[in-house]
Amino acid sequence: MKLSVKQTLSILAFSGIAMISINANADLPDPGVVLTKGNTAIVITDPQNDFLSPDGVTWGLVGKSVTENNTVENIHTLFKIADKKGIPVFVSPHYYYPQEHKWEHGGALEKAMHGMGMFDRVGQLTTKDFKDSGADWLKLYKPYINNGETVIASPHKVYGPETNDMVLQLRKRGIDKIILAGMSANLCTEAHMREFMEQGFEVQVVSDATAAAQMPGLDGYAAAMTNVRMIANSVRTTAQTTKQLEKEYK
Amino acid sequence: MKLSVKQTLSILAFSGIAMISINANADLPDPGVVLTKGNTAIVITDPQNDFLSPDGVTWGLVGKSVTENNTVENIHTLFKIADKKGIPVFVSPHYYYPQEHKWEHGGALEKAMHGMGMFDRVGQLTTKDFKDSGADWLKLYKPYINNGETVIASPHKVYGPETNDMVLQLRKRGIDKIILAGMSANLCTEAHMREFMEQGFEVQVVSDATAAAQMPGLDGYAAAMTNVRMIANSVRTTAQTTKQLEKEYK
Amino acid sequence: MKLSVKQTLSILAFSGIAMISINANADLPDPGVVLTKGNTAIVITDPQNDFLSPDGVTWGLVGKSVTENNTVENIHTLFKIADKKGIPVFVSPHYYYPQEHKWEHGGALEKAMHGMGMFDRVGQLTTKDFKDSGADWLKLYKPYINNGETVIASPHKVYGPETNDMVLQLRKRGIDKIILAGMSANLCTEAHMREFMEQGFEVQVVSDATAAAQMPGLDGYAAAMTNVRMIANSVRTTAQTTKQLEKEYK
Amino acid sequence: MKLSVKQTLSILAFSGIAMISINANADLPDPGVVLTKGNTAIVITDPQNDFLSPDGVTWGLVGKSVTENNTVENIHTLFKIADKKGIPVFVSPHYYYPQEHKWEHGGALEKAMHGMGMFDRVGQLTTKDFKDSGADWLKLYKPYINNGETVIASPHKVYGPETNDMVLQLRKRGIDKIILAGMSANLCTEAHMREFMEQGFEVQVVSDATAAAQMPGLDGYAAAMTNVRMIANSVRTTAQTTKQLEKEYK
Repeated sequence: MKLSVKQTLSILAFSGIAMISINANADLPDPGVVLTKGNTAIVITDPQNDFLSPDGVTWGLVGKSVTENNTVENIHTLFKIADKKGIPVFVSPHYYYPQEHKWEHGGALEKAMHGMGMFDRVGQLTTKDFKDSGADWLKLYKPYINNGETVIASPHKVYGPETNDMVLQLRKRGIDKIILAGMSANLCTEAHMREFMEQGFEVQVVSDATAAAQMPGLDGYAAAMTNVRMIANSVRTTAQTTKQLEKEYK
Repeated sequence: MKLSVKQTLSILAFSGIAMISINANADLPDPGVVLTKGNTAIVITDPQNDFLSPDGVTWGLVGKSVTENNTVENIHTLFKIADKKGIPVFVSPHYYYPQEHKWEHGGALEKAMHGMGMFDRVGQLTTKDFKDSGADWLKLYKPYINNGETVIASPHKVYGPETNDMVLQLRKRGIDKIILAGMSANLCTEAHMREFMEQGFEVQVVSDATAAAQMPGLDGYAAAMTNVRMIANSVRTTAQTTKQLEKEYK
Repeated sequence: MKLSVKQTLSILAFSGIAMISINANADLPDPGVVLTKGNTAIVITDPQNDFLSPDGVTWGLVGKSVTENNTVENIHTLFKIADKKGIPVFVSPHYYYPQEHKWEHGGALEKAMHGMGMFDRVGQLTTKDFKDSGADWLKLYKPYINNGETVIASPHKVYGPETNDMVLQLRKRGIDKIILAGMSANLCTEAHMREFMEQGFEVQVVSDATAAAQMPGLDGYAAAMTNVRMIANSVRTTAQTTKQLEKEYK
Repeated sequence: MKLSVKQTLSILAFSGIAMISINANADLPDPGVVLTKGNTAIVITDPQNDFLSPDGVTWGLVGKSVTENNTVENIHTLFKIADKKGIPVFVSPHYYYPQEHKWEHGGALEKAMHGMGMFDRVGQLTTKDFKDSGADWLKLYKPYINNGETVIASPHKVYGPETNDMVLQLRKRGIDKIILAGMSANLCTEAHMREFMEQGFEVQVVSDATAAAQMPGLDGYAAAMTNVRMIANSVRTTAQTTKQLEKEYK
């Protein structure tokens, strides 16, 4: 059976059992976000070569998902509509500096990323060897990120924006609604979605403008899609989001 | 360079991370956590009736997972070994007060939880109607939580400890290693794991002392297991963790 | 270039900041906050007996400042205008539970407060001995705080809202401008002001609806007035703020 | 009960806090911090030209305080003993990028700093015009900061470490005790002290290895000394701290 938001919540209110027969994707209500001008921004996590370029160190892990989702082009589409409609764009990069290889402990993929030299930079105050490195922006996106308007936050250091200035940058511009995309789906993108929710933002995740590592028994993209569907205010495709922006963002 | 999963994992192995085989995801090294006395604590999220009792409002969504994992008994086992070995225990509850039903927006399951009256309490400064309500502790755990020693943090308000005092309570006791369990796996438990990692704690997630909502097309438990495996320092079963504590916690 | 104060302030003036003269520190421009309906709230820290009642444990330290500023009546005035104009009110209390007396370390006044039994409560899930204790609201304010509308945040645990849910509660109601008052000026009130600024809120501090501990060589009120003047968006008296609300809050 | 300052302090004394007499505020016990090897670090805020060089844009406001405290040499002394004894050093810089001049609101001194072009940099991913600019390190400190060992955190964006990765960097190295110094006393240094306390660190502030802006009616240094004395675990001079390190740091 198909239920409206109102019907679903009524059933929820009266019995947990009823949820069993509910088709989740159809019937877990998606509250939606109205993408209004003045308080809506696009946030992109890790639009960097190590995730999105076939030459990046993680391509062997994420390449299939990036290709299947058409992630590179979908993020490009978000940059283009931002440009066209003057939607503020905020980018949250991921860099590692030499001192961080001396951390005393780390999670499974944190250690893996350090082992791969992912997102490595020579230092905090030098651009030596940065150009077109794994830590640099995907060349396709440079005109949109380096345009003097896009806000480039400090690098996040684990997966979420807890360790950078993204939340402040958004608030100082009056942003409280976020269109979220980027890499990788269940790590930095989901971590940003979760922290933005903890900070009281409304978040719409763009389901095909992201992708994730897939390993035997570990499908990062499937995990992310389950969690963003349950946690975020809304989940939409790139096509749905651009259509929505054309209609609502004025 | 392009890397296959195999090549990447060779790099991982080469990067000095022991290959531990605790489950099917043997490909990804599990860094492990040494559970030493004085700086290790057990953190339990939402050990409350609405999640763990057949009378709870979410039993229709989580009951199957709770039963399959033997979650209730596994959390009980953690409380018992904490008691036996004097391991500090910290509980992070989830409560909603009437004013919070006036929030202007919320995520998909946030709205569903409000619709169900999940974790509802009458007020911040009253215990009216609290005893044995959905927001109260599972009766089985009360002797361990209400023993005057267990630290009961303020309620978290979305899913993570960003909105309560858990991190401070742990740090004020010199804790930097966490054994994490509780409900629900991909929501509050994963959110606590993620924030603890952002705060620089070492976290071992107990894979069968948690459970999650499962809906057609949305398996919260599978999503959580993928993410904790990739993000946390370690993932172990209750049996593995108790064995480890018997050996290391001295 | 070397700059005198005079030269520096010329630059300030030149940088387009209106020179407002609300007090002796006319040299430093006060950016001001426009108190608009829908996104402005009043936040009161620690309106509790241990700070504001002559029977409170800190009266010997703060009584003189509370009396000189007419703090009790000025906070009352803010509650009354909130009531009259329907301005949302958020209260951030300060409580200590028995387990917190086992913290391994604390700051100078943290230890002093614990030594005095300040804000002590019997437990997290009981109201035993709470009524009219030092931790309870000042009786004069109870009708305004216990009206079912006022949001009572979880207790902060050091001085700031980092350890409670105040920021989320404000954001979930669409608040980005804060009128801040309460106790004590250089501790919890200033700590809230500072964290609100870090979170990108606009903050107006009500200079005479607060007060502070004064000890030989340590004037907490003078310290707070210097810091809020330099850091906050605006500092106004209760009379100035109510006048401003009558004019702007519509 | 009503208490005089004297009575209150008797209670403090009775509450088991040693009475230490390091300065005029002998009334308030200073809990002290034992500076042990392995978990103690030195944190320096804003050791940059705009604060510490006579050519810096704020010299007209802070020069007198910097000179009176001998701040430049005292911070130098901390760098030297860190070098000598292998104490980890973490630096928290303050930079502003062009996009931040588009923030919609700011505090009094935030606006003043933007008006002065303080800490301005050309961009996030360029070092153009950085060398020896107001945002660059004081030349005297470069050998200690650019030694490949010192951890340079991302820039903080208001005054505290809430917007950078300092807390994570410290925790990833097992640090829980902080010797804090730098500029300016009541803004970034106090803001770091306050946030470190909220995060459960033990903090010793070095009272003469900092300084502050002083304007008619606004003595930032006096305000900071009052607040750190009340809030931090300990306040010591550079001479006291180095002597303590020679004795305890082993």
